[in-house]
Amino acid sequence: MTVPVAPGSSRVGPNRLRSVLSAGSVAIVGASDNSRWSFTTYATATRYGFPGKLHLVNRSGAEAHGRPTATSCAAIGEPVDVAVLLVGAASLPDALRDVADAGIGAAVALASGFGETGADGHTAQAELAALAEELDIALLWPNCLGFLNLVDRCCAWASPPPLPDARPGSIALVSQSGAVAMQLGRFAARQSVYFSHVVSTGNQAMIDTLDVARAVVDDERVACIAMFVEAIGDAARFDDLAARAAELGKPIVMMKVGRSELAAQIIASHTGSLAGDDAVIDVALRQAGIMRVGSLEELVATAGLVTRTGKIGAGKLGVVSISGGACDIVVDAASAADVPLAVFTDETRARLRETGSAYGAAHNPLDVTGAAVGGPELMTDAVKAVAADPGVAVIGIVDVLPDGEVLTETSGRLRLLGPALAAIDKPCVVMNQVAQDMPEGLRDEVRELGLEPWIAGLDLAVRSIGNVMRWSNRRPPAPPALEPPLDLEPHALSESAALALLAEHGIPTVPTRLVHSSDEAAAAARELGHPVVVKVVSPQILHKSDIGGVVLGLADDAAVREAYDRVVAAGAAVDGAVVEGALIAPFRKGGVELIAGVVRDPHWGPTIAVGLGGIWVNALDDSSLRRLPVDETEVRAMLGELRGAAVLAGGRGGKPADIDGIVAAVAALARLALRLGPRLESIEINPLRVDGSVIEALDAVVTWS
Amino acid sequence: MTVPVAPGSSRVGPNRLRSVLSAGSVAIVGASDNSRWSFTTYATATRYGFPGKLHLVNRSGAEAHGRPTATSCAAIGEPVDVAVLLVGAASLPDALRDVADAGIGAAVALASGFGETGADGHTAQAELAALAEELDIALLWPNCLGFLNLVDRCCAWASPPPLPDARPGSIALVSQSGAVAMQLGRFAARQSVYFSHVVSTGNQAMIDTLDVARAVVDDERVACIAMFVEAIGDAARFDDLAARAAELGKPIVMMKVGRSELAAQIIASHTGSLAGDDAVIDVALRQAGIMRVGSLEELVATAGLVTRTGKIGAGKLGVVSISGGACDIVVDAASAADVPLAVFTDETRARLRETGSAYGAAHNPLDVTGAAVGGPELMTDAVKAVAADPGVAVIGIVDVLPDGEVLTETSGRLRLLGPALAAIDKPCVVMNQVAQDMPEGLRDEVRELGLEPWIAGLDLAVRSIGNVMRWSNRRPPAPPALEPPLDLEPHALSESAALALLAEHGIPTVPTRLVHSSDEAAAAARELGHPVVVKVVSPQILHKSDIGGVVLGLADDAAVREAYDRVVAAGAAVDGAVVEGALIAPFRKGGVELIAGVVRDPHWGPTIAVGLGGIWVNALDDSSLRRLPVDETEVRAMLGELRGAAVLAGGRGGKPADIDGIVAAVAALARLALRLGPRLESIEINPLRVDGSVIEALDAVVTWS
Repeated sequence: MTVPVAPGSSRVGPNRLRSVLSAGSVAIVGASDNSRWSFTTYATATRYGFPGKLHLVNRSGAEAHGRPTATSCAAIGEPVDVAVLLVGAASLPDALRDVADAGIGAAVALASGFGETGADGHTAQAELAALAEELDIALLWPNCLGFLNLVDRCCAWASPPPLPDARPGSIALVSQSGAVAMQLGRFAARQSVYFSHVVSTGNQAMIDTLDVARAVVDDERVACIAMFVEAIGDAARFDDLAARAAELGKPIVMMKVGRSELAAQIIASHTGSLAGDDAVIDVALRQAGIMRVGSLEELVATAGLVTRTGKIGAGKLGVVSISGGACDIVVDAASAADVPLAVFTDETRARLRETGSAYGAAHNPLDVTGAAVGGPELMTDAVKAVAADPGVAVIGIVDVLPDGEVLTETSGRLRLLGPALAAIDKPCVVMNQVAQDMPEGLRDEVRELGLEPWIAGLDLAVRSIGNVMRWSNRRPPAPPALEPPLDLEPHALSESAALALLAEHGIPTVPTRLVHSSDEAAAAARELGHPVVVKVVSPQILHKSDIGGVVLGLADDAAVREAYDRVVAAGAAVDGAVVEGALIAPFRKGGVELIAGVVRDPHWGPTIAVGLGGIWVNALDDSSLRRLPVDETEVRAMLGELRGAAVLAGGRGGKPADIDGIVAAVAALARLALRLGPRLESIEINPLRVDGSVIEALDAVVTWS
Repeated sequence: MTVPVAPGSSRVGPNRLRSVLSAGSVAIVGASDNSRWSFTTYATATRYGFPGKLHLVNRSGAEAHGRPTATSCAAIGEPVDVAVLLVGAASLPDALRDVADAGIGAAVALASGFGETGADGHTAQAELAALAEELDIALLWPNCLGFLNLVDRCCAWASPPPLPDARPGSIALVSQSGAVAMQLGRFAARQSVYFSHVVSTGNQAMIDTLDVARAVVDDERVACIAMFVEAIGDAARFDDLAARAAELGKPIVMMKVGRSELAAQIIASHTGSLAGDDAVIDVALRQAGIMRVGSLEELVATAGLVTRTGKIGAGKLGVVSISGGACDIVVDAASAADVPLAVFTDETRARLRETGSAYGAAHNPLDVTGAAVGGPELMTDAVKAVAADPGVAVIGIVDVLPDGEVLTETSGRLRLLGPALAAIDKPCVVMNQVAQDMPEGLRDEVRELGLEPWIAGLDLAVRSIGNVMRWSNRRPPAPPALEPPLDLEPHALSESAALALLAEHGIPTVPTRLVHSSDEAAAAARELGHPVVVKVVSPQILHKSDIGGVVLGLADDAAVREAYDRVVAAGAAVDGAVVEGALIAPFRKGGVELIAGVVRDPHWGPTIAVGLGGIWVNALDDSSLRRLPVDETEVRAMLGELRGAAVLAGGRGGKPADIDGIVAAVAALARLALRLGPRLESIEINPLRVDGSVIEALDAVVTWS
């Protein structure tokens, strides 16, 4: 567990950070034959053929790892780009001053015992961060392992090498956890996925995962960023990163942990920082076009896949399989991961039957059966036919990857399959039926056979394909609202004023009359038509029902008068409440109640929710979220996400709801909320009543910070 | 895709099948140096050191694989237990007759081109099945790979060996798909999980997965059964298998594909057999104590785990981790897989802090941090402390398994960890952070270090532990109902009669009066109290609202009289309907509406559902299912599974529902349904109205087959 940086602290800019990560010279401070950390740091620094200069610093000047050392950074006597500080927490301030004296602008500090240990550690961490800032040192610390840059072969990594060889990839791995980064590096290599960079940000007291990602996204040798994140830094930098990645067409894949409430609590207790409401994080990532994954394996598989396929066109998944059982698994996996399977055209089916690749119905997924063991061309013919189907955007091929150190009996089919895949102009993904490592000795051979990308494990493969399909075909975010801010003084609004505000901005509201006497109440009720509702009006009373300030279903004059007196008296009895009168409105029954509201999330800013209302709000927690701005198309998608969406379609005598009308009302609410500016805390319509084509806000609350 | 056996066809009993699987002599029919299948079958048969006699049969008598052949089974001249028929579909009838002539009682037939190809294939398959039955041959066929028995080293497997070595395990793998079985065998070995048997049932025209599982469950060398199933055979044999496995305390792990609607359709179209409603299958497996898994990897990991841990005691999961990032992942995975994490006692926390294994709060999961790299005893001390916590039933240890062909720098810690785990009397599971294979050369070494069971991949590990925890602690199934059958003539029941039947059997119902004139109607309404509901009564009219046969909220005599006339007229207008009069009942408003019903599932028999009523039934599909019988405890669990369960607790002015009362009513319905016998098609209460402590069936329908 690590401590995320406090939002708003001074940052290390992307250009500077990118140049740190491409350091031409590195000094290891605390180099010693007596230090385990020194051994591993030195081993990693020299492991991948660093072309720059490596200096060792030892206070006593004793030789280390068979090389001479300088007694301080200042004593090195030539420019150095990055210092790796292996010294303990207590020695860090002196070490930093030495770094500054030597004119070194960047450092990595491994030492732990800071923010992760509690309040004292937090204080020490803040003090040292201030020192680094004062000395103008870009410091990747504490409790972090540092970085590897495989494209420049520059490593400042205080642990054994996490990558088995020097082969650089085009995926930058950015991870708060160093231990997770180690495991990801090794796992990725076994899956023939390679990294350009591996960066561990640890407690990220000065530089966090967003900073690193923002730095590397501009590196033209980086095609994709894979991130392991416990807490996301401030939303403005997040948005900047996402916008830059989208502009460059570079995908970001993120494993954001802390999904469950317990995990969020644990992260909070370890780090003193809120992991945030996971539902909002989920939506924020989705809106930003960041692929969120659920496991370390999916992080690697998705990043590896997207760097090989690039964007997948519009369309669906077509699958050809050597195993019928695998077809069933793929269908279940596709259903679970919301990956659309193509329905083959008649032409495709005919072609599959002609080539003998399929019997009968020639379904997707297509089972070429064990017949392809003896007749390997059945597989390639089938793949070609499926790839030619106009509804297919990406082809999955379930086959058997080599298991063991040599190509097995399946190699004949694989040798035929590789060139066939090369000739297809749609992305093809080879899927092994189960998780497995590719033996090191076979990785090149499999690549040369043309069998990349491959993913081992059907669930993993289908999920990863779905991630890339969604990323490829996401619609651009709604343009920011252009309407001018409303010059509304933040003040408590009564229900009556809140409804009037909504009505003024295009949201249909129930007709109401603000009355100040029982006579006026009775007259208004007659005008609106019985039965009516009478509600106390006071800006100080938000929950009117709770204090007896609402009376429903009043059918005649006498009842209305009596209700007026009652709710006004109830309001007057509330301490500090100024009663402005009562609101008379028609009493509505039937229909479906929705809730629509915008709340300012402390991290993500204004966020809109639409959900089913009534007792179902709390019981089912059935709502859909988005950060603002949203447009009509997005609101329509939100309604579609509701589990209870079917009630809007009517049924059992209910009228189908006017979806266009709901969409217009909610989109208008979203625009209004943005215009109300940053002091708006929340604006909520509860309920938004929908009865066929009649859509009305029955009540509304606006609050300010 | 394969064709499941038709329920009710004559079966091969478990004793006979078990003896087939332990054959002492095998004949390969169609052995030839020209046949690829012959090569692979022969290679597999001789691969694991078969101690029995292997015969080769070739019609021409030509030598094969360097050995002499007989020209027919009959010509072998000595007893043979099993024949492996490599001949094509057309030659199978003759081959079967030869098998019978030779007195061989069992055969495996690889040939495809039967049920999986369509209607003609189905016919051919049925004819040949009849022949085998007539000849009294236990035939594992068609389109299947046969079986391997590693404990007896007897293999009749028409494909390359799916297991890399002869090491027998204690898990019997039973799979419809041969290709899936091949992949599972190889995957399992890479995860140090080993099988006693591998059996592929293919189109299972005579022997299905239930038959094989029932046979091997009685083999004392089999500790667990792992199954890959497309369609489950008849429920009676399923129940018999589950009961026997429970009696012996042997776990069954099953991957049942066809979860999604599309998958079920595809299986149906390929096999002509319904995969069944997946929600009912899910519940049937759960009630039977069978662990259902979602992936091939989980099948192997769960089976491997349970054979090593046996039953896990009551309690929760405690985790010690070398990586903080892994802790977060474990918490999210545990939350997703519904695995309870222990809250450490104060004593445990104190002990963890004393040994230096933890700073601060000492949470579960516990991060011992990278400090354990230098101080490996921090890990073992932590594991011992966590294991001693009374709330912990099973301990997960996140560490780094060897990657590569030699033990790595972590081996010091692992060498210390192994003996520590051996001294702990609760199950311990080593969890690698990512999926990975154990290199063959290291498997024995890792086992000798005491690091089994281990599971590679945190999600996989947590899921598997959860599966075994639930299996270990499941409550015994409800005892079958002992009440005598009701001698009720199956006939259409009017609402009035249906409600009376419910009331008679302990289910609270709304008071009603059956009336035959508008005078009687008005009198009854006065007696019950206005407002009332008037409903037409006719056994032929089930959906009274649809024909205008229901009028609600009648507040006075005149309205009741008018309503009586109206609903009776509406009923009389329905073709063939005999109107018995009208039912008067108090008009109820408010409260929560439930639906409770028993339906005879065509596969699984009487199945009870409880759900939220009203428009939410269709919109949310929020119901809980069980096969009968169920008792009160089970019904209570069902209510807890409803997503909308919170509405029963009240809130927003609603009264909390009398849960005991609901449980009693639903359990009474379940008992009544069983007493009504096998001709009952469905009995449904809709709605069962709950208003605080008032619980009433407002309407009921009973149908018969």
